[in-house]
Amino acid sequence: MGGVAPRCPENPFGLGWSLPVASAPVNSIPVRIGLVGCGTVGAALVELLETQAPVIEARTGLRLELGRIAVRDLGKDRGVALEPGVLTTDARSVVVDPAVDVVVEVMGGVESARSLILEAIAQGKAVVTANKELLATCGAEIFTAAEQAGVDVLFEAAVAGGIPLVRPLRESLLGEPIQRVMGIVNGTTNYILSRMSEEGADYGEALAAAQRLGYAEADPTADVEGYDAAAKCAILASIAFGVNVVVGDVYHEGISGITATDIRYAQRKGYAVKLLAIAERLAPLEGSDIEISVRVHPVLVPVHHPLASVRESFNAVFVEGGAVGDLMFYGRGAGGGPTASAVLGDLIDAAVNRSKGSHATVGALSPARVRSVDDLDSEYYICLDVVDRPGVLAAVAGVFGRHGVSILSMEQEGLGDEAQLMFITHTARERSVQATLADLRELEVVHRVGSVIRVLGES
Amino acid sequence: MGGVAPRCPENPFGLGWSLPVASAPVNSIPVRIGLVGCGTVGAALVELLETQAPVIEARTGLRLELGRIAVRDLGKDRGVALEPGVLTTDARSVVVDPAVDVVVEVMGGVESARSLILEAIAQGKAVVTANKELLATCGAEIFTAAEQAGVDVLFEAAVAGGIPLVRPLRESLLGEPIQRVMGIVNGTTNYILSRMSEEGADYGEALAAAQRLGYAEADPTADVEGYDAAAKCAILASIAFGVNVVVGDVYHEGISGITATDIRYAQRKGYAVKLLAIAERLAPLEGSDIEISVRVHPVLVPVHHPLASVRESFNAVFVEGGAVGDLMFYGRGAGGGPTASAVLGDLIDAAVNRSKGSHATVGALSPARVRSVDDLDSEYYICLDVVDRPGVLAAVAGVFGRHGVSILSMEQEGLGDEAQLMFITHTARERSVQATLADLRELEVVHRVGSVIRVLGES
Repeated sequence: MGGVAPRCPENPFGLGWSLPVASAPVNSIPVRIGLVGCGTVGAALVELLETQAPVIEARTGLRLELGRIAVRDLGKDRGVALEPGVLTTDARSVVVDPAVDVVVEVMGGVESARSLILEAIAQGKAVVTANKELLATCGAEIFTAAEQAGVDVLFEAAVAGGIPLVRPLRESLLGEPIQRVMGIVNGTTNYILSRMSEEGADYGEALAAAQRLGYAEADPTADVEGYDAAAKCAILASIAFGVNVVVGDVYHEGISGITATDIRYAQRKGYAVKLLAIAERLAPLEGSDIEISVRVHPVLVPVHHPLASVRESFNAVFVEGGAVGDLMFYGRGAGGGPTASAVLGDLIDAAVNRSKGSHATVGALSPARVRSVDDLDSEYYICLDVVDRPGVLAAVAGVFGRHGVSILSMEQEGLGDEAQLMFITHTARERSVQATLADLRELEVVHRVGSVIRVLGES
Repeated sequence: MGGVAPRCPENPFGLGWSLPVASAPVNSIPVRIGLVGCGTVGAALVELLETQAPVIEARTGLRLELGRIAVRDLGKDRGVALEPGVLTTDARSVVVDPAVDVVVEVMGGVESARSLILEAIAQGKAVVTANKELLATCGAEIFTAAEQAGVDVLFEAAVAGGIPLVRPLRESLLGEPIQRVMGIVNGTTNYILSRMSEEGADYGEALAAAQRLGYAEADPTADVEGYDAAAKCAILASIAFGVNVVVGDVYHEGISGITATDIRYAQRKGYAVKLLAIAERLAPLEGSDIEISVRVHPVLVPVHHPLASVRESFNAVFVEGGAVGDLMFYGRGAGGGPTASAVLGDLIDAAVNRSKGSHATVGALSPARVRSVDDLDSEYYICLDVVDRPGVLAAVAGVFGRHGVSILSMEQEGLGDEAQLMFITHTARERSVQATLADLRELEVVHRVGSVIRVLGES
């Protein structure tokens, strides 16, 4: 899910890279790692540790040592050299091993990972996880357990893969009044949309290309329908606003309905189509709870907006702060090397904290009210298949008008049976737009309501 | 220098922003701040602290309290409300005040700031500074003193203003084998180049516009000749590679020679012209020292490269890692709000560390050999004013050939006295290119060697 492996050079961590280790402290402190899961990410981490541990030791005085590794299949070739006896199929034995200081969980899935991580925390071990589903489902439970036990739970790799984002949001921007976080957090869908935009491919062709390249899975649902992005959206909202949000709170639409016509029209009007995860702080309507919006859907992004230039399978997260202004963090959202890089950064953090007898301050997650998308305002792009004859526009425009939805621009494409009307509206309430669409579907001159895509204002 | 203030809303940190403080710990720990300097950044920090301190207290249990403030002029209106008696003109008294836990230095300049910071360190106080000149001149001395005293010296605001970059590089990417860091780190020059690119303005017009808007100073030398970017380049190299680099090590060229013709030609060939600070790790030629290149000069950046889309006065730093792949950090490089945001992030970090009795691990800076630009390889764009007659190209091409510099593409613009030849070369050694240019200047058919700009390869 969300998995797009970047092409790596044959020896990405090889010669010519490592820093001189002449200054390595003589009395460095060992930090022993228990690894749970050794697929693409785990194997990349093993390789990265091998070349980088001496550099890290020289810079920090901490010697990262790989202890035992729990896997499902002892016989599988993982492409990395491992000492005999390191592998086990008993994950719990790794987690409770007194010789393990930090547990790295890269197995994925919710229930087993949850028990193992809670067990590790109970044993006083720091935990590093790349597991977005887990955190988007029971993050609050895990953070609370970690806070009570006084240990680290770090998860840089769970959102936007290799991009240093979680830690800057949690730490550097802890005091920043953040208004909105908008991210391209799924590389598969960004790859598909890039192909459609740059080559005029339709959705099916672009998806097939992504599948041929191994960028999309045989069943691409989790990526293309926005489930993967929704989990990341929940985590982003939690850390940006300090609130408890789970994946079930996140409204989501995918990209499978986007057509070549939509993309072409968007480009003519100066927009790129992107699937965005949006976590937004809304002015409280009443009471003292924070009110937020969390949603994943396609967006028409103005071509000069930094998110519009994010191509191929790259991820990027755009942060709007009250003092700092606009920020963007860009990089690889998936793949073994980038994800292992994020895990390694967390490992160093956990090791440093452990050596100082401290741990990262998670902070309590406050409750938050999530505003329904029905009550949000946006500009909209709407595409209708219509009968091509005089009077059609008047009938259609009449429906918009009755619901108080103003039209900013309109264009017809195609003739006869192929006729389509494309509209961009002024800012309107979602509820009114949905009522408009329902009435449009009843019009005899409207064959079909096609894509309905929200437009990011230029503000 | 580097100073481009973003337009801020009237009440950027106002109502509707702060997190609920219901969960504020009852026994929060006070952290008292001594502020040295209260210009644009200092005043923005005072304002930001006022609204955000309760949020920070709720999340961390630490109460940031502004103690005394050292200024040059007691009478100046700073646009922020201050308690009577808070201001003093005696900066040293703030630094040695036993009631001050963390010293924030935003006065700028080298010598006074150096003594004050060393004094603060000697007193066991944490230091937060935004002072790039200071760190690019005597950073190693200050880091060593801090390490020996066991206190923090944090400087997120010194490079790329509000962008969380220094901390991700120092901490999240500490274990990442970084190959190259390339940044647009001067907002003034990026603004000028954006105006030239988007409006076809020539350099003088764009500079005048920047000056009218307050984006460039009356004497713009520090920005347009690359001195400001060179200081930031030295700091970037130090933290990315853990080496001791000072501003004097950094080769730099500015943008004052860039013409509208250069920009137009670059655009036709698919490039944007950007002023980049580049810190690059080179494979060691011999011995065990790290060899690096540190330089600031204009670059033709391929239009699809993420740095090419960075417009107006924004900054962005592109990081190439061996495991993580490509990363980019984008945001405001200057201005009161963004810089104060970075200082506040550091303040929280220092306060949290202090409460745990720990401090950030600076690590020793290793020596590094800096390779001369003469020995670097690049593609080049070269523009020549020439006599417009048959045989000129043969004469010019002959000079290139004699020095082993191959030509990738050539185009003539203008006729007669206005004739110009624009070349892009294959990869060549700087030394050979300089020898070529010297011989070209001797040719009777060459009136003038115009711009010579390095080209960023598509690799």
